[in-house]
Amino acid sequence: MHTDPDCIFCKIVAGQIPSAKVLEDDSSLAFMDIGPLAQGHVLLIPRCHYETLDQMPADEAGAMTRHLPALVKAVQSAMGCEGVNVLQNNGLVANQFVPHVHFHIIPRDQDDEFGFTWPAGQYPPGRADELAEVIRQAIE
Amino acid sequence: MHTDPDCIFCKIVAGQIPSAKVLEDDSSLAFMDIGPLAQGHVLLIPRCHYETLDQMPADEAGAMTRHLPALVKAVQSAMGCEGVNVLQNNGLVANQFVPHVHFHIIPRDQDDEFGFTWPAGQYPPGRADELAEVIRQAIE
Repeated sequence: MHTDPDCIFCKIVAGQIPSAKVLEDDSSLAFMDIGPLAQGHVLLIPRCHYETLDQMPADEAGAMTRHLPALVKAVQSAMGCEGVNVLQNNGLVANQFVPHVHFHIIPRDQDDEFGFTWPAGQYPPGRADELAEVIRQAIE
Repeated sequence: MHTDPDCIFCKIVAGQIPSAKVLEDDSSLAFMDIGPLAQGHVLLIPRCHYETLDQMPADEAGAMTRHLPALVKAVQSAMGCEGVNVLQNNGLVANQFVPHVHFHIIPRDQDDEFGFTWPAGQYPPGRADELAEVIRQAIE
């Protein structure tokens, strides 16, 4: 298993730093975020060290993210919140502050503090198809 | 397979509304968001209709989300962006505007328009453990 001795999440996985655990299995771990964006904010991480999601093998990602429905349901039920955001950030520009893959599970309520700008745009005719083609080629 | 005849994403799955597809398999579909938060914004959805992620069986969620690494990698490579956000919203309060589960894959760059407020807080001693216990019980 890849680990990074300087990574705070690898230290949590290894038990060198304590955490308030919510769920764990062979490949992943969920625990309370100590810098919560809302009360009840949970993080889901792989035990293995990957900086960003694109580096994870598909099977390992699936083995971790299959826990998201149960976590969303439990956080919503436990906190009594109206909604939940699941958020996974890749790169500092995308608000990733710890370079070890993590999914945020964030309780949401009217007038809470966390939120987004939502500058939904529009494509000129044909542009979405062009972009889809370039992205498809990048997958293959 | 559950479908909702009034759901715009079910209509996309059924081919009744066109979409610029990026990836598809038996259980899931990825296509360009027509209201992009940034150029190259992709959506990943299950073919089956679930309003929110907590309603999805773990296996079905894993079968869909296993595609996230390839999508993040392809979007970043195709768009040449510095980072990528993966975002899944549950409930109107959490910015879910279509009630069919979808993961946003959003290209990010310095000074782009999409972004978050990030009001990271702090728990008093013991509080994170208390919340973890309540959330664990809600999972069981």
